[in-house]
Amino acid sequence: MEFKIQELEMGFQSPSSYNPSNSFLNRIQEIEESNVYKFIEKLPKGGALHVHDISLARASWVVQNITYEENLYVSGYPSKPAFKWADYVTNSSHWILLSELRNKFSAGKVDQWLMKHLDIRVNNPYEEYSDIDKVWTAFLNVMLTIKNLLSYAPIYDRYFYEGLSEFEKDGVSYIEIRTLFPENICEDLQCSKTLSTLEVAKLNQKTIDIFLKDHPNFCGVTLIYAPIRVVSPEVVQTKYLKTLQKLRECFPNLVRGFDLVAQEDNGKPLIEFINTLIQMKQMDPELKFVFLAGETNWQGFSTDENLIDAILLNTTRIGHGYALLKHPILKKLVAEKNIAIETCPISNQVLGLVKDIRNHPASPLIAEGSTPLVISSDDPGSWGANGVSFDYYEAFMGLARKHMDLRLLKQLFNNSISYSLLKPQEKEQCFNKFRNKWDNFMERL
Amino acid sequence: MEFKIQELEMGFQSPSSYNPSNSFLNRIQEIEESNVYKFIEKLPKGGALHVHDISLARASWVVQNITYEENLYVSGYPSKPAFKWADYVTNSSHWILLSELRNKFSAGKVDQWLMKHLDIRVNNPYEEYSDIDKVWTAFLNVMLTIKNLLSYAPIYDRYFYEGLSEFEKDGVSYIEIRTLFPENICEDLQCSKTLSTLEVAKLNQKTIDIFLKDHPNFCGVTLIYAPIRVVSPEVVQTKYLKTLQKLRECFPNLVRGFDLVAQEDNGKPLIEFINTLIQMKQMDPELKFVFLAGETNWQGFSTDENLIDAILLNTTRIGHGYALLKHPILKKLVAEKNIAIETCPISNQVLGLVKDIRNHPASPLIAEGSTPLVISSDDPGSWGANGVSFDYYEAFMGLARKHMDLRLLKQLFNNSISYSLLKPQEKEQCFNKFRNKWDNFMERL
Repeated sequence: MEFKIQELEMGFQSPSSYNPSNSFLNRIQEIEESNVYKFIEKLPKGGALHVHDISLARASWVVQNITYEENLYVSGYPSKPAFKWADYVTNSSHWILLSELRNKFSAGKVDQWLMKHLDIRVNNPYEEYSDIDKVWTAFLNVMLTIKNLLSYAPIYDRYFYEGLSEFEKDGVSYIEIRTLFPENICEDLQCSKTLSTLEVAKLNQKTIDIFLKDHPNFCGVTLIYAPIRVVSPEVVQTKYLKTLQKLRECFPNLVRGFDLVAQEDNGKPLIEFINTLIQMKQMDPELKFVFLAGETNWQGFSTDENLIDAILLNTTRIGHGYALLKHPILKKLVAEKNIAIETCPISNQVLGLVKDIRNHPASPLIAEGSTPLVISSDDPGSWGANGVSFDYYEAFMGLARKHMDLRLLKQLFNNSISYSLLKPQEKEQCFNKFRNKWDNFMERL
Repeated sequence: MEFKIQELEMGFQSPSSYNPSNSFLNRIQEIEESNVYKFIEKLPKGGALHVHDISLARASWVVQNITYEENLYVSGYPSKPAFKWADYVTNSSHWILLSELRNKFSAGKVDQWLMKHLDIRVNNPYEEYSDIDKVWTAFLNVMLTIKNLLSYAPIYDRYFYEGLSEFEKDGVSYIEIRTLFPENICEDLQCSKTLSTLEVAKLNQKTIDIFLKDHPNFCGVTLIYAPIRVVSPEVVQTKYLKTLQKLRECFPNLVRGFDLVAQEDNGKPLIEFINTLIQMKQMDPELKFVFLAGETNWQGFSTDENLIDAILLNTTRIGHGYALLKHPILKKLVAEKNIAIETCPISNQVLGLVKDIRNHPASPLIAEGSTPLVISSDDPGSWGANGVSFDYYEAFMGLARKHMDLRLLKQLFNNSISYSLLKPQEKEQCFNKFRNKWDNFMERL
């Protein structure tokens, strides 16, 4: 608390030194040097309930590890990169082994180029990302690049394990990952076939089992099937529904939730898929909805009113729920129905919803205390963050009142287990693991 | 409404075209071209309850009129200007007649220089005003420059009349002005003496009488004595209290309220002056407090907690109250005690509290509907605005929900009379005048 007050007082005296009012993209280093951050980083942290499968690990790790693997061919230098994993030299002159490209143009230059396409950080975010669509374009480009890069099963797998490790190292005890179960993953270096959704899930399950053996104090990993929302109702009815059914049949313990992802303002609201969604739940009452809703500043637009349908569909949590504060009746309903809001402060700042974290709507929600909140990091790998500590730092320094202390953090950590998709007994076990870590840490303080 | 929906849909499709998410300093022209603005500009508008005496009129009017008056000497070109009104050539070589300076360096160049020091507009506000202290420094410089320029009674008077005219032309029917009753105003060109507070008030009264004769449909002008808050409790006790008593004795109808002004975060909270403030009210129960409070993003700091003391002191309204949303108990109290919040969206944006108007805390307050709000413009003359139409535009387009229509505006206009310092009978008369204008306008539509 001494560190917190110190850092806040310094900000009050000299506002430009205050991290939460500046873009995270410009402040990572300053945050890493903050004593508050260093303390939060060491804390045991409960669950991370809102993250995406292909943004789990830092881009710098990807460049230094994945892109130094053998058999990686690349094209597009020095503009947009494309990748191909193969054990033969392709015919096309477009493709070159990445190791050869490094020999030709120096490793440093090539790594920088790769980094630029795997991480949305820029020096002047307010200029380059002057409106929300520009930053979303950059973000979607990064997503496509990384998806392309991970399109070989052992590599996808290695990334997945690294992602879990980064969260575990950051003090996280449990994780729920929204995933598309990507359809472009080659089984072998000849790419004789790509993995089906079920095969990806099977691969995930295997990696998770190994990870849990390696980290017996970790509570577990749950997946949320979250295909993109920019599709017609027919796609949801014919494709998503069937895929979900198969996943639930084969991996009922692993895949527990359903959501639809991508930039909400450009996507379709839930109401367009309402019939299928109702059917989904009727066929599989154990399935949990964890809908993204209200990740928008456009009050009264269809994506804003998504919140209504998410609540009517008995969603277990709401992803982002940024707009909730402007819907007093829905806010009340959310509290009554005990629906948790997954707040991702850095994501909302980086992706253009708010500049100064203190203006984030979760701040009044914390002050009011009746809306259950969980803090998460959405896509940390895409903007130089890792795990969830950076987001807890922003929440503690930017969303919470000056005198709110460790008790707030502990409450948020507890929430992140309470509002998880774990079953009651699993929850109890996870609480025990978390409490052990917490007590050990506090004793050592 | 058609125009509103059209403009919002255009913003939704192409966010960079949307005015409320961009700095007003960059968007004045686009707003002036908006059909929504053009409509709001023509509407009859009730009262403007939160404005300051030396920011009433546009800087461009000041440059084109006041600085073209005879007998104005200037120094400091091309750095910071200082002004002296005199009918003799001063001895110092520093001073030069402004007309001569124009001959020497071209009028355009000199006017540009003056404009730069009388208006805080810049082309790249996000860079030049990268933190809240920088923009406040620029703003305070403008205040000092204009105060210096208006330091001759007939000129001060001319500015005051122009200020009232700009609001009247903008459709405003009534105005409450926070004023310091500046102490630097010379009575004559020899500056043989400066006006006392009472003499300034007398001058104001005379101008107001003439203005009301010229504009019989205007309801009136009320002044709020609002000296600066960056002083010791002794100054409030010995100087402010006595000045207020004299003003109230001589001009009980004109001077009805008390406040303390200047950047709240750098000033003193009310609690430091509490004894004098209580004494003030005991000696003069008719006096109304209209305290600035919570114009801050620093949650839990002394300036934030100002809100508590303003409410405990039975303030009639709260100036800005930006932080109120983060104090759920105070928010309830404000509703119960029927205290109005004076929201100045452009001021809060320009002075660095919030970037996107949709993140302004008044937006959820409008959605909730239990906190009484009035919209005002604070210091329009300092940033190229005039009257209150620009602020109503931001409120209508940026704070309100998509489907909120003319009824919201009418409610806000009504509030601005209901929550004024007018007495019940005056209020009734003012409502009648406003209603006449409104009905006439609606008939002509």
